[in-house]
Amino acid sequence: MGNREPVVDFWYDFASHYSWLAVNRIEKLAEAASVCVRWRPFLLGPIFSAQGWNTSPFNIYPAKGRYAWRDVAREAARMGLKVVRPDPFPQNSLLAARVALAGREEGWLPAFSKALYAAEFERGRSISDQANLSDILRAIGVDAGKALAMAQSEPVKSRLKAETEEARSRGIFGAPSVTTADGELFWGNDRLEHALAWAAGDGPRGFR
Amino acid sequence: MGNREPVVDFWYDFASHYSWLAVNRIEKLAEAASVCVRWRPFLLGPIFSAQGWNTSPFNIYPAKGRYAWRDVAREAARMGLKVVRPDPFPQNSLLAARVALAGREEGWLPAFSKALYAAEFERGRSISDQANLSDILRAIGVDAGKALAMAQSEPVKSRLKAETEEARSRGIFGAPSVTTADGELFWGNDRLEHALAWAAGDGPRGFR
Repeated sequence: MGNREPVVDFWYDFASHYSWLAVNRIEKLAEAASVCVRWRPFLLGPIFSAQGWNTSPFNIYPAKGRYAWRDVAREAARMGLKVVRPDPFPQNSLLAARVALAGREEGWLPAFSKALYAAEFERGRSISDQANLSDILRAIGVDAGKALAMAQSEPVKSRLKAETEEARSRGIFGAPSVTTADGELFWGNDRLEHALAWAAGDGPRGFR
Repeated sequence: MGNREPVVDFWYDFASHYSWLAVNRIEKLAEAASVCVRWRPFLLGPIFSAQGWNTSPFNIYPAKGRYAWRDVAREAARMGLKVVRPDPFPQNSLLAARVALAGREEGWLPAFSKALYAAEFERGRSISDQANLSDILRAIGVDAGKALAMAQSEPVKSRLKAETEEARSRGIFGAPSVTTADGELFWGNDRLEHALAWAAGDGPRGFR
């Protein structure tokens, strides 16, 4: 007890370009706010399916999709990054999410997540390709063969299902999202600051 | 020529709660950025219909809708405002938009817009009710009978159709939105600052 930091859950899908932006911002923001971040990769696909979407809303609604790529490019430029569109978009993020969860206990989940997003949205690489995932794992010093085997084990597969179900049960409908210990949900790269402030006790709580 | 300010178009639908937030922020932000704002009420309905929606996406996708009300309440609290949900939501904004356009030449469009949003989202009043619209017009010193008659004249009806068509042709798919003289589109209350910075020449232009 005593000096413990507040904790938030940071939910992201590897296919999400706005999550790529958030992954590149959240660590510094969390440090400044003295909030601890739990990295929670999950799958938006099953949540989208449940509301009748079989692909990204950015594909279903072309005007919104075109806008989003432009907006991501502008936001990236503000951060000194340049977005490269992977083909197809969205990428299938199932294997990547399983690999990430395989690394949770071993501590390389954040490093893998950042390296994977960079490959996908800065170099346009496929994230469903095992060879690409192996490259990324090796680049962060992880035994790729072991990690990929673990990623496809039953415990990790079930864990990803449970994570996704937990996301849904918390009201999550998009990525990135942040949830706080008291059940508050914040959606979008634009809400990271507000989510961390809320967790740190600086949110506008007076209103309810 | 010479000292003229850059101009942006500020697009909003009277049924939109995020537009209510934006209407309460844009004037100060624009003044600070030395940007002139053209107020452009339009109708999202026809744009939503064209993509198969017959109501607000916040009703079609309940998780997103619940989140949006919570998010609007939080954002409002940060501004010292408290949201009251009008019933039904969304309100039918057709007559309100026509009244607003009737006031464009006479200069009361911004005042009417702000007063109408306050009635709708701070007091939960109907904006399709002529008596309520009359109250709002009188409160800002406008001849209500004359304004309502003008609102229902053919020129104003056609103008609203043209405005909505222009919004659509500029790629607008939601409200509030801001467009700049060089064709850049910014969507959402969260993007007002970036839109004004872009118009003032401070955007991240280097990226293309």
